[in-house]
Amino acid sequence: MSRFFKKVSEKSGLSPGSLVSIGDKKMEKVRMTILDYDEKSMSEKEIKTFDECLPFIKTPSITWINIDGLHDIDIIQRIGEIFNIHPLVLEDIVNTGQRPKYEDHENYLFIVLKMLQLEEKEEKIRTEQVSLILGPNFVISFQEEEGDVFNPVRERIKNYKGKIRKMGADYLAYALLDAIIDNYFVILEKFDEKIEIIEDELLDNPSPKTLQIIHNLKRETIFLRKSVWPLREVIASLERRESKLIKETTVPYLRDLYDHTIRVIEGVETVRDLISGVLDIYLSSVSNKMNNVMKVLTIIATIFIPLTFIAGIYGMNFRFMPELEWRWSYPSVWVLMIAVFVSMLLYFRRKGWI
Amino acid sequence: MSRFFKKVSEKSGLSPGSLVSIGDKKMEKVRMTILDYDEKSMSEKEIKTFDECLPFIKTPSITWINIDGLHDIDIIQRIGEIFNIHPLVLEDIVNTGQRPKYEDHENYLFIVLKMLQLEEKEEKIRTEQVSLILGPNFVISFQEEEGDVFNPVRERIKNYKGKIRKMGADYLAYALLDAIIDNYFVILEKFDEKIEIIEDELLDNPSPKTLQIIHNLKRETIFLRKSVWPLREVIASLERRESKLIKETTVPYLRDLYDHTIRVIEGVETVRDLISGVLDIYLSSVSNKMNNVMKVLTIIATIFIPLTFIAGIYGMNFRFMPELEWRWSYPSVWVLMIAVFVSMLLYFRRKGWI
Amino acid sequence: MSRFFKKVSEKSGLSPGSLVSIGDKKMEKVRMTILDYDEKSMSEKEIKTFDECLPFIKTPSITWINIDGLHDIDIIQRIGEIFNIHPLVLEDIVNTGQRPKYEDHENYLFIVLKMLQLEEKEEKIRTEQVSLILGPNFVISFQEEEGDVFNPVRERIKNYKGKIRKMGADYLAYALLDAIIDNYFVILEKFDEKIEIIEDELLDNPSPKTLQIIHNLKRETIFLRKSVWPLREVIASLERRESKLIKETTVPYLRDLYDHTIRVIEGVETVRDLISGVLDIYLSSVSNKMNNVMKVLTIIATIFIPLTFIAGIYGMNFRFMPELEWRWSYPSVWVLMIAVFVSMLLYFRRKGWI
Amino acid sequence: MSRFFKKVSEKSGLSPGSLVSIGDKKMEKVRMTILDYDEKSMSEKEIKTFDECLPFIKTPSITWINIDGLHDIDIIQRIGEIFNIHPLVLEDIVNTGQRPKYEDHENYLFIVLKMLQLEEKEEKIRTEQVSLILGPNFVISFQEEEGDVFNPVRERIKNYKGKIRKMGADYLAYALLDAIIDNYFVILEKFDEKIEIIEDELLDNPSPKTLQIIHNLKRETIFLRKSVWPLREVIASLERRESKLIKETTVPYLRDLYDHTIRVIEGVETVRDLISGVLDIYLSSVSNKMNNVMKVLTIIATIFIPLTFIAGIYGMNFRFMPELEWRWSYPSVWVLMIAVFVSMLLYFRRKGWI
Amino acid sequence: MSRFFKKVSEKSGLSPGSLVSIGDKKMEKVRMTILDYDEKSMSEKEIKTFDECLPFIKTPSITWINIDGLHDIDIIQRIGEIFNIHPLVLEDIVNTGQRPKYEDHENYLFIVLKMLQLEEKEEKIRTEQVSLILGPNFVISFQEEEGDVFNPVRERIKNYKGKIRKMGADYLAYALLDAIIDNYFVILEKFDEKIEIIEDELLDNPSPKTLQIIHNLKRETIFLRKSVWPLREVIASLERRESKLIKETTVPYLRDLYDHTIRVIEGVETVRDLISGVLDIYLSSVSNKMNNVMKVLTIIATIFIPLTFIAGIYGMNFRFMPELEWRWSYPSVWVLMIAVFVSMLLYFRRKGWI
Repeated sequence: MSRFFKKVSEKSGLSPGSLVSIGDKKMEKVRMTILDYDEKSMSEKEIKTFDECLPFIKTPSITWINIDGLHDIDIIQRIGEIFNIHPLVLEDIVNTGQRPKYEDHENYLFIVLKMLQLEEKEEKIRTEQVSLILGPNFVISFQEEEGDVFNPVRERIKNYKGKIRKMGADYLAYALLDAIIDNYFVILEKFDEKIEIIEDELLDNPSPKTLQIIHNLKRETIFLRKSVWPLREVIASLERRESKLIKETTVPYLRDLYDHTIRVIEGVETVRDLISGVLDIYLSSVSNKMNNVMKVLTIIATIFIPLTFIAGIYGMNFRFMPELEWRWSYPSVWVLMIAVFVSMLLYFRRKGWI
Repeated sequence: MSRFFKKVSEKSGLSPGSLVSIGDKKMEKVRMTILDYDEKSMSEKEIKTFDECLPFIKTPSITWINIDGLHDIDIIQRIGEIFNIHPLVLEDIVNTGQRPKYEDHENYLFIVLKMLQLEEKEEKIRTEQVSLILGPNFVISFQEEEGDVFNPVRERIKNYKGKIRKMGADYLAYALLDAIIDNYFVILEKFDEKIEIIEDELLDNPSPKTLQIIHNLKRETIFLRKSVWPLREVIASLERRESKLIKETTVPYLRDLYDHTIRVIEGVETVRDLISGVLDIYLSSVSNKMNNVMKVLTIIATIFIPLTFIAGIYGMNFRFMPELEWRWSYPSVWVLMIAVFVSMLLYFRRKGWI
Repeated sequence: MSRFFKKVSEKSGLSPGSLVSIGDKKMEKVRMTILDYDEKSMSEKEIKTFDECLPFIKTPSITWINIDGLHDIDIIQRIGEIFNIHPLVLEDIVNTGQRPKYEDHENYLFIVLKMLQLEEKEEKIRTEQVSLILGPNFVISFQEEEGDVFNPVRERIKNYKGKIRKMGADYLAYALLDAIIDNYFVILEKFDEKIEIIEDELLDNPSPKTLQIIHNLKRETIFLRKSVWPLREVIASLERRESKLIKETTVPYLRDLYDHTIRVIEGVETVRDLISGVLDIYLSSVSNKMNNVMKVLTIIATIFIPLTFIAGIYGMNFRFMPELEWRWSYPSVWVLMIAVFVSMLLYFRRKGWI
Repeated sequence: MSRFFKKVSEKSGLSPGSLVSIGDKKMEKVRMTILDYDEKSMSEKEIKTFDECLPFIKTPSITWINIDGLHDIDIIQRIGEIFNIHPLVLEDIVNTGQRPKYEDHENYLFIVLKMLQLEEKEEKIRTEQVSLILGPNFVISFQEEEGDVFNPVRERIKNYKGKIRKMGADYLAYALLDAIIDNYFVILEKFDEKIEIIEDELLDNPSPKTLQIIHNLKRETIFLRKSVWPLREVIASLERRESKLIKETTVPYLRDLYDHTIRVIEGVETVRDLISGVLDIYLSSVSNKMNNVMKVLTIIATIFIPLTFIAGIYGMNFRFMPELEWRWSYPSVWVLMIAVFVSMLLYFRRKGWI
Repeated sequence: MSRFFKKVSEKSGLSPGSLVSIGDKKMEKVRMTILDYDEKSMSEKEIKTFDECLPFIKTPSITWINIDGLHDIDIIQRIGEIFNIHPLVLEDIVNTGQRPKYEDHENYLFIVLKMLQLEEKEEKIRTEQVSLILGPNFVISFQEEEGDVFNPVRERIKNYKGKIRKMGADYLAYALLDAIIDNYFVILEKFDEKIEIIEDELLDNPSPKTLQIIHNLKRETIFLRKSVWPLREVIASLERRESKLIKETTVPYLRDLYDHTIRVIEGVETVRDLISGVLDIYLSSVSNKMNNVMKVLTIIATIFIPLTFIAGIYGMNFRFMPELEWRWSYPSVWVLMIAVFVSMLLYFRRKGWI
């Protein structure tokens, strides 16, 4: 299936706000977990129906509800009802072809971004859409499937590390965003390492396989770029603190996050520049190799073709060829041929070909 | 006929506001249909003269008049009189070389955009100009010919699906725009699939025909881009809600539409990047193939030319060539030739050519 | 003479405001015509001295004075005196290397733009600077030589077509600008047609002559672009209606003109994209052709060089070559050679070269 | 020495405001001239010490002090004291690696720009930094060496041509800037002419020397561009009339100058486009030439290699070769060879190679 | 290790504000020095614990604390406590992968930038992150290791050169920034010199090694650019004087610094342009060399292949070849061969190949 364009065509023409899960169903069953904490206590729980989380939300403690799997439309619909969420937001959560974005709906903020992970063989970036709904004292995160980069955040909450337990829901949202964006650096590093390996290979032996790898990297970078560019705007909107849901104390952290985002974007551009540099070397190496092949051919051919001609002359069967009868003809021809050979070599050396 | 520049030259110098239908007459007869609805009732009707729709427009229910075919100037003129529409707007409706645009004429909005469809063999994008006039309780849509992407919208109105029956004329206009823009995704997906097919082909066998296909894709993308870029501005103007004809409740939908537009634009840019990547692979593959051809030639020539020379030597007919008379000359020459052969092979292996 | 840079060097260092006609004197004698009209009457007249037009200007009717030929400095100077025009404006009228611009001098507007026409063989764009001075009830247009694109406007005035007779001098200025810009579309169409012809030729037979034509087109496009880009700003300034000389009723027409300008600019960019696409095809075709040439050479050479070597072996004159005496040697050699030949052919087929 | 980066490294780490003349000392002795004028009188004088000019400055007449040579730090320092000029301005005057800039220091304006001149062989642009200090009734101009483009301005002052004698010091500064910028056009024209000459050469005979010339032009254009781009901002700042030292009446002239600057910038971009076009032709011509070389090789080789093989067959010395004994063998072989020859020629003609 | 992406992955997921030194530990022991001065006195001291500097800071004299080495987290933490510095700032100081930035924290300013130095063989840029904390009467500078470009500043303070002793802490910060940025010019000059050397080499002998050097330069320029671009914003923020810590009198110096920054940025762009120009020459030279190789091959082959064929003809052993018996056959064949030879030479000369 096309990775760049999710099958929105299936939805084409449907009423806006219709909840239709697109793409492959990645999980058997939706999995919902609650992490509820304040400065003093913390509790974690896996729930079966969304309504189980209602008592947690009513308390002033911070509640983080994480939902893995988006194919159960009923749950999404129920969340929409409970928190009075706009149908278009629900559609965006389910429809995983969104670009990163930020929407302020007064009583909640809606943030979409892409969680990226390198696949096993590190040849392809696996992408997962993460949607966050940030309310006054809760964060709901939607993921396409299990497995994420949030474990360090969970650790910090459970073990009371850092200041996360003292801060509000906005800081939790920040921590989740930070975890996602930090992971981009890991991918950039991997890419950078790969480019260095390729560069070393190139000088020795530029093979078409190398070209294939370079091209794959390039395509993955187009992909990465598409996920990363809109982030700038998203984080900048958060940092401008246009919503009351973002507290003053969280702003320095968001500014730091903005810095990270800029560095990720610059990193992607740098990787693009490096790849284009590597491609240039590849092309030059190939052309250089061809040049060498041609030189060898030319040297051999231009030396031996005239010599063969000379030999051909005296292979003719004319009755009246006086040279054939002379005593020193044969040695003289050898002298002539060696002279041609040597002068050709000198010519090539002067040209710098040998 | 040129697809990029409609024959405006025929109109060159005419008084502005002159209604002259340019391009081929695509339909025999203009076809006009009315769809009138409110929350309670709905009626559909095909009309012969435009004046038949007047009673519908006077009622507060929403009226959608769709006109297929633009060559009957009298009808366009009549619409202009009835709704007091500026002659330049009428000219833009008839003159189908417009770029997407939005104009606010206080008592009506005028929106032009391009409806795109892939032709049967999916080699070319077929474009049709769609003009919308949005009034307080009516929408008039003008198309160049029959056949459009609006059927899902008609379905939703007839079957009371979604909220379209509860909303105003501005929502109807939104629904039509949404249907057109959603269709762009279908084209992008098709392009993306084609690029993947080409990529697989390229690695096996880069033929000039592939190049032709790549080039066609590229040209169609130029075309697509031209239709898509101005959309951003058009939808953004609508979303800013500068006109009273756009109601507050429609704004979230327009914002969603704006998001889609941005994604279409990004999609076009991604397709461009992918095509340019594919072109690079093509060129590298061709150059690589040539390299291989050269290598084969060089290997064969540089091995056999010296050998032929040796054979030539002893094909000479000099009377005094002592080697000719020796007992072991012939086997020795064979040994020499095999030695040359082997050392050449070793040289090429060391060079990595074999 | 250089087309891109008019010989301003001749003027270099002169006092600003000096009237020195640069470039070739294109006409023998300056030709001045007056077209004076209001809703009821219309008169046309050719005049010898500029002062003949003064009575027309004093009446409230609209007066259009057209001047072909800029080399008679006295006339220009006289116009400057009569209408109190800034010396720098007069200099700009005479000095035909201006870029399109718009200047608001309170009691008159000064507009410069380029009238473009394709030369006979359609190989080169011929450019002519047109300057307009728009006063309260008059328009003065300056052209370098006779022959222009204004005839349709003259027709509309004389035959009372369209609304031009009912509108003011600003509408007349608009009509002239519109005629010039409409003509740009004609050039773009011609270019587009040429590109299509070239594309078809390319696939059959990419000759260096085609390259020359592509390059000429490219250069003309640089030229076209230079004339067209500043227009956007010029027309936008007019449309913003910063001057009282532009009436409210003319604004929709200027907005329409602005739309046309944007389309011209986009058209130029599209032509550039198309040309660069055609150039890519050309280069690929050439490289592909070379590839084919190389393949033929390689196939022939790699088949016959080894065969020639075998023949050479048995052309040697050693006394002791047992094979020479054998009965079936000759047919065996033929068998060997045919075997080599066939195996080579199979090899090439497997490689996909035949 | 590097032309792009003046030896600022020598100054690296010095206290800001230190006056250290960098670069070669271009003149033996500093030369100072005064030109003092008002509407009625004019006097010109060469002075030894800067203090000689003080009486002139105290009168209300306009005083232009021109200083050729920057290596005498004492003079610069003295000027700084007299007019109370910021040490950083003095440093910028002496340190000739500045980019064009404009600084408003309330009681004087400081303008730096580059005076460009083509060297004798017109292969290199020679650059000289010109700094202007504009006070209420005086202009001080600093040049690196004697020889400049200001002679026409001096002429106009001395001969009372134009309105320069009637205007203030700001007009004088304008006149100097105008003279410098007008000279840029001369360089652009020269470049344009050269490009045309190269283009004609290219079609006949693309030699590596041509490439060298193209590359030099390209590098000079990088240089030119660096000097020209910041000018836009400089002149725009002057035209905005933020300083009281610029009078209302001078503004139209500055606007005209701004127009010229834009044209120079566009000219540089056009030259860049033209050069890149010429480079494309060069590369295509080279590749085309190579194509032709290859064709000749292929035609000759593919015709004669098979023929030589046939001749080789019947050069073999087998005892039992029945053809050798036949009466019509030799003519038959000729017929065969001519048939191969002709069919090859027909093949090449069909391929369009001959 | 990757130079473009510091191992932030190790930190990925940690609580923000955690101080973990990344990268290699470059020094054994942290080294702290104090330079305390006012207009009258000056003292310099190396300290063991940070608290030793507290008495200096309490006096109104300017205190510059320089810290070489960032791996001792305790010291950084202590500084944070004493000056009440935000944990994210401390993290940024320790985490040396920052991009240049400026942060205003009301009671102190935080500035990060990159100190660049060319390594011994001048093949690689060595980068070191320098962080400055500017307080009311102190500057703390953090460096990764010993050795910096600040010695001239130390000299000026110790020897009372320039006005540094009379100015405040903001001027000291300016002086440090100025020293760092001035050093960029040194690198640019070195690069420019290298490019000139390469250019001369290229014309003589374009070797793959040259390509490698060009590519290295290009990569270093990507690196340089990354360090330099954000500087513009940093210095502009300082110059806008949004903080009370920047005094009015320092602004002209900051404006001068801004000018330098712009020049550095332009310099980097110029170097990029020059490198891309050099790369073009390289590629053209290689292609030209190949062209020459091909020409030699073609000339030799096309001359001798036909001649060899002629010789081959008369090497055939047919019994009935009348020419073989003729008296003048052999000389005639020589005449024929010389004729072919000469006409080939003439053909090549006409083609311009010889």
